[in-house]
Amino acid sequence: MTSIGIYGSLGRMGRTVADVIGDAGATLAGGVDRQGDCRPLAHEADVLVDFSIPSALPEHLEAARAAGTPIVIGTTGLSAKHHQLIDEASRDVAVLQTGNTSLGVTLLSILVREAAERLGPDWDIEIVEMHHRHKVDAPSGTALLLGEAAAGGRNTQLSEVRVDGRAGLVGARTEGTIGFASLRGGSVIGDHQVIFATEGERIELGHRGEDRVIFAKGAVRAALWLANQPPGRYRMGDVLGL
Amino acid sequence: MTSIGIYGSLGRMGRTVADVIGDAGATLAGGVDRQGDCRPLAHEADVLVDFSIPSALPEHLEAARAAGTPIVIGTTGLSAKHHQLIDEASRDVAVLQTGNTSLGVTLLSILVREAAERLGPDWDIEIVEMHHRHKVDAPSGTALLLGEAAAGGRNTQLSEVRVDGRAGLVGARTEGTIGFASLRGGSVIGDHQVIFATEGERIELGHRGEDRVIFAKGAVRAALWLANQPPGRYRMGDVLGL
Amino acid sequence: MTSIGIYGSLGRMGRTVADVIGDAGATLAGGVDRQGDCRPLAHEADVLVDFSIPSALPEHLEAARAAGTPIVIGTTGLSAKHHQLIDEASRDVAVLQTGNTSLGVTLLSILVREAAERLGPDWDIEIVEMHHRHKVDAPSGTALLLGEAAAGGRNTQLSEVRVDGRAGLVGARTEGTIGFASLRGGSVIGDHQVIFATEGERIELGHRGEDRVIFAKGAVRAALWLANQPPGRYRMGDVLGL
Amino acid sequence: MTSIGIYGSLGRMGRTVADVIGDAGATLAGGVDRQGDCRPLAHEADVLVDFSIPSALPEHLEAARAAGTPIVIGTTGLSAKHHQLIDEASRDVAVLQTGNTSLGVTLLSILVREAAERLGPDWDIEIVEMHHRHKVDAPSGTALLLGEAAAGGRNTQLSEVRVDGRAGLVGARTEGTIGFASLRGGSVIGDHQVIFATEGERIELGHRGEDRVIFAKGAVRAALWLANQPPGRYRMGDVLGL
Repeated sequence: MTSIGIYGSLGRMGRTVADVIGDAGATLAGGVDRQGDCRPLAHEADVLVDFSIPSALPEHLEAARAAGTPIVIGTTGLSAKHHQLIDEASRDVAVLQTGNTSLGVTLLSILVREAAERLGPDWDIEIVEMHHRHKVDAPSGTALLLGEAAAGGRNTQLSEVRVDGRAGLVGARTEGTIGFASLRGGSVIGDHQVIFATEGERIELGHRGEDRVIFAKGAVRAALWLANQPPGRYRMGDVLGL
Repeated sequence: MTSIGIYGSLGRMGRTVADVIGDAGATLAGGVDRQGDCRPLAHEADVLVDFSIPSALPEHLEAARAAGTPIVIGTTGLSAKHHQLIDEASRDVAVLQTGNTSLGVTLLSILVREAAERLGPDWDIEIVEMHHRHKVDAPSGTALLLGEAAAGGRNTQLSEVRVDGRAGLVGARTEGTIGFASLRGGSVIGDHQVIFATEGERIELGHRGEDRVIFAKGAVRAALWLANQPPGRYRMGDVLGL
Repeated sequence: MTSIGIYGSLGRMGRTVADVIGDAGATLAGGVDRQGDCRPLAHEADVLVDFSIPSALPEHLEAARAAGTPIVIGTTGLSAKHHQLIDEASRDVAVLQTGNTSLGVTLLSILVREAAERLGPDWDIEIVEMHHRHKVDAPSGTALLLGEAAAGGRNTQLSEVRVDGRAGLVGARTEGTIGFASLRGGSVIGDHQVIFATEGERIELGHRGEDRVIFAKGAVRAALWLANQPPGRYRMGDVLGL
Repeated sequence: MTSIGIYGSLGRMGRTVADVIGDAGATLAGGVDRQGDCRPLAHEADVLVDFSIPSALPEHLEAARAAGTPIVIGTTGLSAKHHQLIDEASRDVAVLQTGNTSLGVTLLSILVREAAERLGPDWDIEIVEMHHRHKVDAPSGTALLLGEAAAGGRNTQLSEVRVDGRAGLVGARTEGTIGFASLRGGSVIGDHQVIFATEGERIELGHRGEDRVIFAKGAVRAALWLANQPPGRYRMGDVLGL
């Protein structure tokens, strides 16, 4: 039976992952949060799931790499430097990083990519998301993931077309840009909508997360799949064969 | 230059089609509505566009067939018998029938088909639409078109899984069904949403029509394409190469 | 400390009410479900909360009346006859019946009433709701509650203007009617939207329930308030002083 | 018959106002745009309607004041200084300034004020709007108008609680703030939604503008009402008796 180790085990996601591991036919190897040494767990577990904070990522990646243990990274708010570290680690170990581990978002991102590919540049793309009042970063990792799917469908880099938090005398919209808007309030688990708008019509592709357990279940499903993969960088779509 | 004849030329859609023909680089062959004889126009035009009423369809199809003139049918509220007549006519002439001529809806129906194909039966499918207060049929032709796309993605016939206008003590939802709900009010041109809902999450794929001109432009685009096709029954996706 | 008795104590809502009673500074007098005799609990409790089924209502009302114990009724799917029984019981004991015990829905119903009152008859009213796949009745009790608020704002009876589950060749919309549409799927706790649509614009007033606990908390809050009221029929708005 | 003069007469709104004046039983006194001298029109018209640009406002206000002609200001993107000028002018002449002249938005703003007043500070307020790709300012004047209604309901100044275009590591939401998010794309005339979110539930109050004519009709209705008012600063709610 595959044993799963959790980084960020005391956080909301970490605890939910621990709750669903049994139902998925796996065992809990253990958990580390904040002060703990993350290296022993990397050796003990068959696969790791990380829902901690960006600043802890370098250490977690290094532990996974040293132990040769695959790692699923669901931590959000990563910078370009973090992604570089992930790329490096993935030469030696299987790493799956994703802004959202749910099946619904994974499919949505594929539909978004397809829509962006088939609709011409006269269709403007906007992404709006809402999360609970405690979320500290904006836009959400999932919104960026959807933005990357849209940019990919248009053969551009998100970083070149991204417009965050439009405010003030911003001028008319620049063709080809992808706008992001972030709402915060209450206990919203995560709502996302990608809007394609042209003269006279709009296509709206969205996802609503109603229960945090969907992310935990998806992360465990990804971990069970990743446990047997060779070194490399993977995506949720790979897990689901999409 | 391709000349286009309009059946239902005095209706809202017929008049809008007449308005946009020039911009699309075509000419207006003429229009017929209600009392007129529809046969001369079928001979004169290179291609016909029909936005009339279901009861006039048999005569229009017969005129197109006799003249060998391709016909785009955008009339909604068709019955199984109408579809049978279309199938018969399409042996002798090119016929494109669609519940919605806009590019956005055409793409949406493809995304809906794909989502239905990839999501398991534990994702329930519901379709909700809103139109202006003057619309006489429910669900809309576009809602049915989207329902057919969803049913197609699951390898079922819409007629076998369709549930209209849920009301009363209906009991728990039956797995595999596709529910339809219709709202009417004000001057709404046409809003559609297909919802895929499972335990803990929802995917929502929708379209908003803001200006009736999108349907006219799409119908003219379809007519220009259909003018050169051999006999057969076509769909909007064929026009757009989707 | 006020003691609360629960009818329908094994149902989803009954169990949630039991869970939140302590946090609200009350005690649990006990629960009855299905086969149990509901009379002893009515004598023991200071106030009753009923989340059972319509067929059990007559017996529950009689028990509350005989014991002189106020009762909050959150059971949905009630008929005109049930409402008549409630009216009769409320001559002898305080009864609060509501289709929805959440604060948000209670406020929404007041806003809906106000909007209906201030907007002329050229604004069409439509109500759409979505609930999980296990719900057996349509429209939801909450949708009807909102419909009554809208009808009240226009000085009409909902029963005279209500149109359920529009389907088929229904003809143009009749002015003054209120349409209902019900979606079912997944695990949706309860989403409601009241749409006011006129030529060129729409007002949309909605509520999303994310966690069933809001209904339990509201029911307990209502019970604590009702425990001290004289005989009469009350509404959630009374509890909240709205 | 009341004669109406238009400032910004060549803009989209100015032209639409000119189109609907006849239907409202008024006459067109004339129009001025850009290079024209705005003073003669102020003397000739019974009332003025201004849909121009912020930089032209001082001159227009001065012309209205000098001629003693009431003026409806629908220009958006005004600064605190513009509002001060309006306050000053309103000592000598009737001025009605509004971020949105539609009946629907006017009613919505009243419902938003009421909801904000009745819901405690544990309900977070967020405002999201979408407009066409040509709009140069964000948030929209209407979004700010709705934000002022919400702030007013809580006895605060919008300027003290306003958070625009959330982006980056913004930290957890601060209680009492009102967040704004702006989407741009296609030909959207104007959609607005005010979200009140707390633990477990959300109330969403929104408006969709489908046809620009609603703003022109509302502006003309306001102008006809304002033509007979004494000096002072007015709001759309005054026109409608709300």
